[in-house]
Amino acid sequence: MTLLRILEYAHDLLKNTISKGDIVIDGTCGNGHDTAFLAQLVGSEGFVYGFDLQSQAITNTSSRVAQHGMDNRVELFHTSHSNLNKLIAEEHKGKIQGAIYNLGYLPGSDKTVITTPEETVSSLQQLIELLNHGGMAVVVVYHGHPGGEEEKHAVVSFAESLNQTHYEVLKYQFINQQNSPPFILAIEKKPE
Amino acid sequence: MTLLRILEYAHDLLKNTISKGDIVIDGTCGNGHDTAFLAQLVGSEGFVYGFDLQSQAITNTSSRVAQHGMDNRVELFHTSHSNLNKLIAEEHKGKIQGAIYNLGYLPGSDKTVITTPEETVSSLQQLIELLNHGGMAVVVVYHGHPGGEEEKHAVVSFAESLNQTHYEVLKYQFINQQNSPPFILAIEKKPE
Repeated sequence: MTLLRILEYAHDLLKNTISKGDIVIDGTCGNGHDTAFLAQLVGSEGFVYGFDLQSQAITNTSSRVAQHGMDNRVELFHTSHSNLNKLIAEEHKGKIQGAIYNLGYLPGSDKTVITTPEETVSSLQQLIELLNHGGMAVVVVYHGHPGGEEEKHAVVSFAESLNQTHYEVLKYQFINQQNSPPFILAIEKKPE
Repeated sequence: MTLLRILEYAHDLLKNTISKGDIVIDGTCGNGHDTAFLAQLVGSEGFVYGFDLQSQAITNTSSRVAQHGMDNRVELFHTSHSNLNKLIAEEHKGKIQGAIYNLGYLPGSDKTVITTPEETVSSLQQLIELLNHGGMAVVVVYHGHPGGEEEKHAVVSFAESLNQTHYEVLKYQFINQQNSPPFILAIEKKPE
């Protein structure tokens, strides 16, 4: 395969955007794979903020980053990513180099603990303000679950509405697949 | 910019797909830039078939590849790419490793000499049959001109309908830009 699959492409974008020492965000820790990936990219001088509504996700992520000896560069919050702006340190605002959100359910998790489309859009609005110029938010949109279509429409509308003077918004999607496969929205904040 | 622009991404895909000695197609020669790019990728052992409805495009492309001393590996046809299957040598059928189509008008060209959406879809249908397994067709869809929307819909519908068992179809599109910017459809034929 020459075409990168969705998760490969998401990681490729993050690798090309993030360097050692950077400050980044995992909006949806889930099982902690992306949090650990980000912690590796930023190195011991960087910092990762992680968020998840599910307590199991925070537990899993916490033990995963500890296993890799990276817990001192990761701070986890058991809350919605829509509380982003309140929880990011003042000195990191406007300096976030990269972020990843996986929108959808963590497999096997409590499906009653969910984020509303309004919260997700509010969170992304906060996120793009927090981004560094040249920084990027990578949003992987899973939308096959109940409520997924509604969230998808809200997020795509938000992304389409971003001012092209300040942001590049790419949609990366395989369009001939069954069963509502995920797609990527990548939002890059342009240089000043 | 970390996100590759449309033409950068199109060329990146071709570079990652095509090697020395390959047989490839430029469906829309235009000013000949892509034909020359392909001729370089396939090297002296490879071969490029080029098509264009506009005689000026064939003249420009012919002199461009001659300037670079690559005319012996390029064959140009002054006809629609919908005549593809008739003109490709039998021994090259099923062995085409890469192709590029730029759908839209050549700037400054005769706007009465156009391809219909039906011809374009027929051509792409022929093309994917001619592709090697692991080969790729990159279609850059310009659609801001009269008739462009109709062609866009026909081509996207065709691409969406391709069987996912045999083809991966990616849409790569910047979604927050004014003035109907072009987007990419990349069709990769899976290994047998």
